[in-house]
Amino acid sequence: DYSVHELLKIDPKYRSIGILADRTGAGPQIFAADEAVKATNTEVCMIECPRDTEGGAGHGCLIVFGAEDVSDARRAVEVALSFVGKHFGDVYGNSAGHLEFQYTARASYCLEKAFGAVVGKAFGITVGAPSGIGIVLADTASKTATIDPIAIATPGNGGTSFSNEVNFFFTGDSGAVRQAIIGAREVGKQLLKALEPSEPLESGTVPYI
Amino acid sequence: DYSVHELLKIDPKYRSIGILADRTGAGPQIFAADEAVKATNTEVCMIECPRDTEGGAGHGCLIVFGAEDVSDARRAVEVALSFVGKHFGDVYGNSAGHLEFQYTARASYCLEKAFGAVVGKAFGITVGAPSGIGIVLADTASKTATIDPIAIATPGNGGTSFSNEVNFFFTGDSGAVRQAIIGAREVGKQLLKALEPSEPLESGTVPYI
Amino acid sequence: DYSVHELLKIDPKYRSIGILADRTGAGPQIFAADEAVKATNTEVCMIECPRDTEGGAGHGCLIVFGAEDVSDARRAVEVALSFVGKHFGDVYGNSAGHLEFQYTARASYCLEKAFGAVVGKAFGITVGAPSGIGIVLADTASKTATIDPIAIATPGNGGTSFSNEVNFFFTGDSGAVRQAIIGAREVGKQLLKALEPSEPLESGTVPYI
Repeated sequence: DYSVHELLKIDPKYRSIGILADRTGAGPQIFAADEAVKATNTEVCMIECPRDTEGGAGHGCLIVFGAEDVSDARRAVEVALSFVGKHFGDVYGNSAGHLEFQYTARASYCLEKAFGAVVGKAFGITVGAPSGIGIVLADTASKTATIDPIAIATPGNGGTSFSNEVNFFFTGDSGAVRQAIIGAREVGKQLLKALEPSEPLESGTVPYI
Repeated sequence: DYSVHELLKIDPKYRSIGILADRTGAGPQIFAADEAVKATNTEVCMIECPRDTEGGAGHGCLIVFGAEDVSDARRAVEVALSFVGKHFGDVYGNSAGHLEFQYTARASYCLEKAFGAVVGKAFGITVGAPSGIGIVLADTASKTATIDPIAIATPGNGGTSFSNEVNFFFTGDSGAVRQAIIGAREVGKQLLKALEPSEPLESGTVPYI
Repeated sequence: DYSVHELLKIDPKYRSIGILADRTGAGPQIFAADEAVKATNTEVCMIECPRDTEGGAGHGCLIVFGAEDVSDARRAVEVALSFVGKHFGDVYGNSAGHLEFQYTARASYCLEKAFGAVVGKAFGITVGAPSGIGIVLADTASKTATIDPIAIATPGNGGTSFSNEVNFFFTGDSGAVRQAIIGAREVGKQLLKALEPSEPLESGTVPYI
């Protein structure tokens, strides 16, 4: 409806919208939506991250695609859903907290809007919860390879929704971004495992980085 | 105590306060408090909605009534409590999320303060969690009948406390407001049921709209 | 890494940092960190309180100590950890909510930074969740003894992270601060117990106030 469009501040030229919402995870959905933006004639109008994960330490996600044509909006949601599994590949959790790593060789407009990524350049993120682990991940990533830091989001600095995470966003040479993530992932898995040694710490899908 | 009054910015003329607080639900308590304001010589001094629901996707609530007389403050809390059950009548939840619908033929000062309702006019709200469902509810409500939208609250726009909800507030002709809610409720129950088909999706009390 | 330091706005003179992070509890960790600051050559650079407690009504915590020397940073974390148990001594919880009371005869820089305590003076806090209980605690504390209120934090006023708590911070004569807390504790335990009469309401460690 037009009045709802207006209240949501969605450009009126987008007569159709596609909606992707979940309770657990924001990074996987946002990276998947970036693939959808690359593959379809749509724009991401809205990305918001509630404090959720059903009692966990992180976020849920609400992403709205705008399209002039209803078939484009539908296609964007389909493409995004097809990539969500891949982008849960480097998400690791136990009852103490969680880790998330994401990487793309070429960021597009959704990652620019969400995290300040540079369009067309490699982009990576490290996420650690509880938040202390996230600081160590950021430090490890930037010591592992020569990357260009974009921002750090902490529980109270506005980049998160008071979640118990520290998130680090960076760009740079594609090989360096990957290397930084791999270094941080190794350290992060050791730290989170140490908090709950008796629990397995495995990705729910297949690691892709 | 007076210094506490002052820190809470409660008008000193209210020598007594009545407190209504809970971990699960804000809409039912706020609508119930509106009935209490109509029925007693009190004012609502404070309405705040923590991010709570004990791990769920929504809010808890803190409502403070101010009264010049202690018996008025007590009476306001009693009246509000007597209406809470009614206003849980159109709250539906399963492990995927929740829906809430509220309606009054004549809003009073508590709904004005909380949601921008117009005093003396019909007022309705639709709430959907996860937040994507809430957008569909808002769209359905405004397509079902000719209503006057007041606002939409999304996870990150300040109208919620980073909860995983989208809430739609509207006024209009009393029949139209009810019709809009009934239309949205039908669609919402189908959507939320589809996310957890094996679970029942029923109100804990008796639907009143 | 220096770039991470910079993004976190940590003074570059602190070449080492010590990190204390948790999912459940902020008050105990902050009071314990205050002891660490008194005992070591460090400063608290960062205190942030995510909305956490693993589905409960309160906060988690992230504290970063800055030190010129790595051994000072490590020592600060060790001292803080050694005091965390003590400061869980007056934390009481059941499935309805929780209470927390903290007291120090002489506040230092960490409590000043976190809560506005006056360095060198007695300082106390009362915390009640759900938030309605916290208002009663504040009122009881300030009626029990002559104290100087510093601030009240409520779910939506910026002093909490949308947690379902009301927190009261006060200074004053050391005996009065203790007396105010003891009075509030007695009332708070009765109220929270009344919400879940069948559950025990005991501290996980040993009460110290």
